[in-house]
Amino acid sequence: MTRRTLNGPLPPGSTIGILGGGQLGRMLAMAAARLGFRTHVYCPDAERPAADVAAAATVADYDDEAALAAFAAAVDVVTYEFENIPEPTVAFLEPLVPVRPSAAALAVAQDRLSEKAFLRDIGIGTAPFHSVDDVAGLDEAVAAIGLPAVLKTRRLGYDGKGQAFLGDRSDTANAWAAVGRRPAILEGFVHFACEVSVIVARSVDGDVACYDPVHNVHRNHVLARSIVPAGIPDAAAAAAQQIAQRIVEKLDYVGVMAVEMFFDDADGGRLSVNELAPRVHNSGHWTLEACLVSQFEQHVRAVCGWPLGEPRRHADAVMENLLGDAAADWPALSREDGAAIHLYGKTQVAPGRKMGHVTRLYPLGTCPDS
Amino acid sequence: MTRRTLNGPLPPGSTIGILGGGQLGRMLAMAAARLGFRTHVYCPDAERPAADVAAAATVADYDDEAALAAFAAAVDVVTYEFENIPEPTVAFLEPLVPVRPSAAALAVAQDRLSEKAFLRDIGIGTAPFHSVDDVAGLDEAVAAIGLPAVLKTRRLGYDGKGQAFLGDRSDTANAWAAVGRRPAILEGFVHFACEVSVIVARSVDGDVACYDPVHNVHRNHVLARSIVPAGIPDAAAAAAQQIAQRIVEKLDYVGVMAVEMFFDDADGGRLSVNELAPRVHNSGHWTLEACLVSQFEQHVRAVCGWPLGEPRRHADAVMENLLGDAAADWPALSREDGAAIHLYGKTQVAPGRKMGHVTRLYPLGTCPDS
Repeated sequence: MTRRTLNGPLPPGSTIGILGGGQLGRMLAMAAARLGFRTHVYCPDAERPAADVAAAATVADYDDEAALAAFAAAVDVVTYEFENIPEPTVAFLEPLVPVRPSAAALAVAQDRLSEKAFLRDIGIGTAPFHSVDDVAGLDEAVAAIGLPAVLKTRRLGYDGKGQAFLGDRSDTANAWAAVGRRPAILEGFVHFACEVSVIVARSVDGDVACYDPVHNVHRNHVLARSIVPAGIPDAAAAAAQQIAQRIVEKLDYVGVMAVEMFFDDADGGRLSVNELAPRVHNSGHWTLEACLVSQFEQHVRAVCGWPLGEPRRHADAVMENLLGDAAADWPALSREDGAAIHLYGKTQVAPGRKMGHVTRLYPLGTCPDS
Repeated sequence: MTRRTLNGPLPPGSTIGILGGGQLGRMLAMAAARLGFRTHVYCPDAERPAADVAAAATVADYDDEAALAAFAAAVDVVTYEFENIPEPTVAFLEPLVPVRPSAAALAVAQDRLSEKAFLRDIGIGTAPFHSVDDVAGLDEAVAAIGLPAVLKTRRLGYDGKGQAFLGDRSDTANAWAAVGRRPAILEGFVHFACEVSVIVARSVDGDVACYDPVHNVHRNHVLARSIVPAGIPDAAAAAAQQIAQRIVEKLDYVGVMAVEMFFDDADGGRLSVNELAPRVHNSGHWTLEACLVSQFEQHVRAVCGWPLGEPRRHADAVMENLLGDAAADWPALSREDGAAIHLYGKTQVAPGRKMGHVTRLYPLGTCPDS
């Protein structure tokens, strides 16, 4: 097999392969269809909401090389809807078909330690951090960073999973056990007024487009609401976008990325980056209604080598996740004037599971929550 | 098999059957998915853009009763994306599964003569018309209506197909031959300043919602552009919406309908109805970007027994069809700030074929074309 490369923008009618079959893949697939692309969803899960709106689907494990090879042959470019795709999967695909964002960018974001080290190396503030490989290393990290702190696995954590709060030196053995005695990182706390994120996109040609920063409200470590505008000073909003731009440029990134940050209003405003999500992101769902080009279309444009769309918004917005049973409220939502309802077609309800979201728009400058 | 009826709104996770697999079905399927519904597309065509975004598809003829029965069993409600579904198909399905809009409403709109007669009977103005069953009848119709006039087949005409212009009495035999010697209707001309359409929706509960009237510009009998606002006086816009409301109420209609009208600015403004399309319509595509609830979501809401959404728009809009080779302009369109691109995923290009459309938004009150 010879490596295929893309010369110029991918024409409509081409097929975009999507690794992962959840709601992000579902909304990506619809954005791709709107631009005339076919999509092919690859995922191991029996429940795969994205497949319901994709032209083709493969249900196979991420280490099924025959299935991966057939997938690579059937598509023109590969992207992914979540960052925990096993590294060997992407390494297997990348010689066969263009993968965007690249395996190199993915590798940085998959590992909390390499992510934090990358940010430090390019001069972007983060919480204090220290690598932890064993209990002795944890004691060392505590000595370096102080307490309280949070011990997090380097890989595969999301929505608060794989994390242990550490308030006392005597708890180190418990914390180490709680994260499964796996390579970890100890992160100190930073003081902050609010959590914000920037959805940024970078094209194959190196152009960068940032949506306005969003204020994110979490509940039980899961995003509950995203509010735009974020209600932070203009200078801080501009600085947040500059940070996001610097990150995607330094990674030679192609696609949409979410950059989660803490904003501290002391000292005239300080931003530190908490996490990178190398994909479309829950905190960008509001762009579907409030912008002409959503984060999903923007990602499709980027990975297909198209120019980026204009990220400006025509409204203020509040996005609220429908977690677990909240999606059962659809009758009331269906009667609510001005509520844009998104339900993901999942059949298994679990507490905290993302079942859908609703976005409410407000004329510019009138958001009641900003 | 027992007839299934729907009590109350259809819950998300249910399956909507769509007869027809073109771009209207494609955009319906995506609107349905956004609300958490599954879709199942039924159509006889090998090329079926809607199937690329549907959870299931059946490729079978409209008279394949085994396939229709299986389709009926697999879905919770049936709707259609075009009005030329054979009557026996709908008659076969309706005892098995709810069909919305109803076969009765479809029957009126499928036949130009019954459509015009219905409009006349409920007091709505149309062009003068007369039924034509043979050449002698055509002479009679010409005597009644005068010339020039247009001879149209009663059934299966769209985009100017099945029509013959009649300017001279000596041409009747030719005109009769041109429409295939099939049951026809002779329509006189009405003076008009512009063609407008109203996209109207009616819910199972009888609520009615109208989008703002649109000014439609045709080229070679095919819609080229739709412009909103339509640029007609406020009183005429309100009257156009009242006409649309009266039509759906008199038909006990459920779903979205497009009502095409002629607007004559003489005599203080006069509207006459040209055609009913009992489905989502090309002249409503602008609602995807300019309204929170598009015509596609509105139709899904109606046929699923949900309350209608609010049809107000937040912007002026111009929708331009991409016909035939025009879709090859995608590279330029992809670089155009503010152009919302829709490509339908069709592989066969033909002159005048609807390959996609592009919508451009303008802040309220600033549309350059209204």
